[in-house]
Amino acid sequence: MLTRIDHIGIACFDLDRTVEFYRATYGFEVFHTEVNEEQGVREAMLKINETSDGGASYLQLLEPTREDSAVGKWLAKNGEGVHHIAFGTADVTADSEAIRDKGVRVLYDQPRTGSMGSQITFLHPKDCHGVLTELVTSAPTGANDH
Amino acid sequence: MLTRIDHIGIACFDLDRTVEFYRATYGFEVFHTEVNEEQGVREAMLKINETSDGGASYLQLLEPTREDSAVGKWLAKNGEGVHHIAFGTADVTADSEAIRDKGVRVLYDQPRTGSMGSQITFLHPKDCHGVLTELVTSAPTGANDH
Repeated sequence: MLTRIDHIGIACFDLDRTVEFYRATYGFEVFHTEVNEEQGVREAMLKINETSDGGASYLQLLEPTREDSAVGKWLAKNGEGVHHIAFGTADVTADSEAIRDKGVRVLYDQPRTGSMGSQITFLHPKDCHGVLTELVTSAPTGANDH
Repeated sequence: MLTRIDHIGIACFDLDRTVEFYRATYGFEVFHTEVNEEQGVREAMLKINETSDGGASYLQLLEPTREDSAVGKWLAKNGEGVHHIAFGTADVTADSEAIRDKGVRVLYDQPRTGSMGSQITFLHPKDCHGVLTELVTSAPTGANDH
């Protein structure tokens, strides 16, 4: 069951400049940064609010680390903008299997590791009215402390 | 001060079919529908979660009521997908003035009426790294009861 807007993924050419825009314009601060080599992105998570399911909603700013990554190719075609949206769930495996059974293409056979130790998968945008849609199960609290 | 992700605005060709997709696929239910003639849209708000500032986060599904509306022109160019993102604030007037003073173009001289009696304005996407960005102050609780 999807219980929150987990994040909005925004593709940008220059992560540092985009982080500075969000800080200077709105006062949003960086909560976490990491490089995901599998996804080919360098990213910053800006925490905007907490949510009624015990989680939080973030902006995820994404800069490609290589031109042939999914985000790199998307940026070359579309320019900067909203790349995907993500819903939070307690069980990404169960939800993605249920959604696959409804005929929506799920892009990974098994969930992969996303931001902050989460488990994630993606749904095909052509099956979701044009919206690249991610499902996220956050890491257990404290999992990033080690 | 912006204190939540208020909504993600998603443009679609057929509102009823898109509402049904979100219901059947994820179990999201319609919280509110309306037609905004000024914006040239028919819309459905799907409430996803409540937020730590006392508000909520929604998906806003938007179907143009005329081809020459902003959303109609955007759809003709881009096809279905994420049209804008919106942040919630207790004072859209003060925040939009402060943001204008930082050199970001604010599209309205004064806030206008948005979904569910809210007050809204938009920031120019070219000043926001490609993201059409809305600021929203919700109507006072109960304002939609009359």
